[in-house]
Amino acid sequence: MLAIVTGRHPDRLQAVAAEIAQGGGRAVALAGDLSVASEVERLAVAVRAFGSLRAAIFNAGQSIWGSLLEISPQQFEEAWRTSAYGGFLFARAAVPALLEAGGGSLLISGATASIRGRGPFVAFAAAKAALRSLAQSTAREFGPRGVHVVHVIIDGGIDGERLRTGAPARVAAAGEDGLLHPDAIAETYWQLHQQQRSAWTHELDLRPFKEAF
Amino acid sequence: MLAIVTGRHPDRLQAVAAEIAQGGGRAVALAGDLSVASEVERLAVAVRAFGSLRAAIFNAGQSIWGSLLEISPQQFEEAWRTSAYGGFLFARAAVPALLEAGGGSLLISGATASIRGRGPFVAFAAAKAALRSLAQSTAREFGPRGVHVVHVIIDGGIDGERLRTGAPARVAAAGEDGLLHPDAIAETYWQLHQQQRSAWTHELDLRPFKEAF
Amino acid sequence: MLAIVTGRHPDRLQAVAAEIAQGGGRAVALAGDLSVASEVERLAVAVRAFGSLRAAIFNAGQSIWGSLLEISPQQFEEAWRTSAYGGFLFARAAVPALLEAGGGSLLISGATASIRGRGPFVAFAAAKAALRSLAQSTAREFGPRGVHVVHVIIDGGIDGERLRTGAPARVAAAGEDGLLHPDAIAETYWQLHQQQRSAWTHELDLRPFKEAF
Amino acid sequence: MLAIVTGRHPDRLQAVAAEIAQGGGRAVALAGDLSVASEVERLAVAVRAFGSLRAAIFNAGQSIWGSLLEISPQQFEEAWRTSAYGGFLFARAAVPALLEAGGGSLLISGATASIRGRGPFVAFAAAKAALRSLAQSTAREFGPRGVHVVHVIIDGGIDGERLRTGAPARVAAAGEDGLLHPDAIAETYWQLHQQQRSAWTHELDLRPFKEAF
Repeated sequence: MLAIVTGRHPDRLQAVAAEIAQGGGRAVALAGDLSVASEVERLAVAVRAFGSLRAAIFNAGQSIWGSLLEISPQQFEEAWRTSAYGGFLFARAAVPALLEAGGGSLLISGATASIRGRGPFVAFAAAKAALRSLAQSTAREFGPRGVHVVHVIIDGGIDGERLRTGAPARVAAAGEDGLLHPDAIAETYWQLHQQQRSAWTHELDLRPFKEAF
Repeated sequence: MLAIVTGRHPDRLQAVAAEIAQGGGRAVALAGDLSVASEVERLAVAVRAFGSLRAAIFNAGQSIWGSLLEISPQQFEEAWRTSAYGGFLFARAAVPALLEAGGGSLLISGATASIRGRGPFVAFAAAKAALRSLAQSTAREFGPRGVHVVHVIIDGGIDGERLRTGAPARVAAAGEDGLLHPDAIAETYWQLHQQQRSAWTHELDLRPFKEAF
Repeated sequence: MLAIVTGRHPDRLQAVAAEIAQGGGRAVALAGDLSVASEVERLAVAVRAFGSLRAAIFNAGQSIWGSLLEISPQQFEEAWRTSAYGGFLFARAAVPALLEAGGGSLLISGATASIRGRGPFVAFAAAKAALRSLAQSTAREFGPRGVHVVHVIIDGGIDGERLRTGAPARVAAAGEDGLLHPDAIAETYWQLHQQQRSAWTHELDLRPFKEAF
Repeated sequence: MLAIVTGRHPDRLQAVAAEIAQGGGRAVALAGDLSVASEVERLAVAVRAFGSLRAAIFNAGQSIWGSLLEISPQQFEEAWRTSAYGGFLFARAAVPALLEAGGGSLLISGATASIRGRGPFVAFAAAKAALRSLAQSTAREFGPRGVHVVHVIIDGGIDGERLRTGAPARVAAAGEDGLLHPDAIAETYWQLHQQQRSAWTHELDLRPFKEAF
């Protein structure tokens, strides 16, 4: 098994690939921008050269905060381009590869905002709602052909570099296990990938035990 | 009361304005493309010149059919640009005018696809889901300031020129009252606009009595 | 048009009937317990004697507060018996009468709890969720036969005797139009009853403009 | 680890316990009726005698088919008593035991009908909707205290004795992996039980890959 890691920042990708290698896994870093059609096509070709695709995970998202009257049309578009349009390009590239491989998983990360729009998240929520709809359409069409599409609603803060650097007070307030551990998220993604096809999940939520919802 | 009718096709707008005038109403036709920021800004200025805005209705939508593997990235984007981005530009222009007027209504037309993604509607549904999220964010933020945002899920075919010309067999199969009459839709929009603010509706469905759901 | 008012407390019914009469309407008070099958059957016979049924409105509900570990099985059952079982008996009596009349409306009052369960509302919410499901099943089956079933989610406090007596502080905090006016609710129910059958609503929410949701 | 199996039919329980034992596990069969408060209390005492409760799974349900005008009030009540009231009694007994044990899982089986009411399922759907609401209330209250409440929407037929005996044509039509395998369901329940508390799932669906939804 080989993990191919992609994103816009080569140095971060290398770090992730190195971490996987340290843990005994095999990983390759391929830089690219998932919101640009030609880039996604280039990545798809590169990925196929490594063998059969078994699972594809879409995590891209851009947090654009600001209410309807604060953000610009460009920002509204940018949020969509990263999460929704990027998701479309990704699914459009991954699904044929998964069909060729005889089936596989397409795991898509959503957020609270995917199912709930609120003032300051107007752009992010609209983009995530579009992505969720895309996941649903894709599941309905390609599930019967062996592509397991899952939409995971991550409802809470993730205990990672972004929050630890950008919102240390929030991290402190969350307390023990009050933010989602990346390993715990990954474990569920892994289990979803391994579900036997007579009992597939299409949508589930993941949140810290103490998160109000 | 004056109705301002907008859209990309001046001749159609004139026809609608003429129909309103024939019915004893007053209407003005202002052509413009709701998916272009500068056009929406121009329209907003023109609308204000006529007086205080009481209600704004967003109906724009483009039916792009085709599954994930059939449509192009351009088509996916076009669907979004018309329904979701257009809705953003429209809300962004209408809300300040409604706030200035001391409150008013922003009525947004959704569709079955707003809450249900399916293969051939992947682009349309993703765009409509984004629009629905936008309506929700806007309602949550501006409701307490007097802007009544409603999202109407139109779940069925509309008995209008598009279906009568494009899908006569569907019209025939629907039978009496099997398609939504535009007048019946309009009547509900009117009632929503008149709701007293202690009991506002944010979301409702509208479907023919015989429509399966 | 004649309004038939029912409930367990004859004096309150008389007061409502008297209020309708004062407003120029015609009303009859028929006492009965909607959670007892034989009572509902007796009421149904009495109602038919007055003529054709055009609309039936189900408002019964019992507010039982207390968390899972605080309430008794009897309380959990009582909440269900009033809201859900009562709704079943009511629909089972009203639908045949509406079918005989050639169609009509069955309007069912829900609450925030109908779509959201929370600790202290465990019993009430479970009962209201069951009632909502009943409304949906009934709409799907009898809509095509001319029975317009609507489920109204009342999301906020109602500005009535119960709150004014029992929670004056909440009434004061709500401010102007911060609680739903019964007249405003009634107006929407009336409009729903009058919807032309090509564009029926099955579900909508009603909340004060300033209510957070 | 010891599995305690309960239900109304001692012979079936013994068979299940024997099957677990044959697979190398340890199981005890305790007969009881989950829709009777005194029986559930008796079972709760018996279970505690075996040690600390780690997970409790509620599967009870009674399939009562028939539309609003076909079923009796007794049948409507019976459906509720088995699924919803039984679920309440079960949760009310299990939660204190799980709290005492320092936390654990309460897994509740739902069905398509939990989120969608339809004519012939009016009683079953109303009961399952109530159970889902109960699961939600319980999760919101006891999640922060370490009780992981999950509601699993089983959307499809289960490949078990009931369908094989009662609906062989449906089993044949479903084809390979067209019905949910009990082992696949169990595997997901097991994974849910093992989720690390920083990333808990409250609700998910499970359906055969080829099931339309």
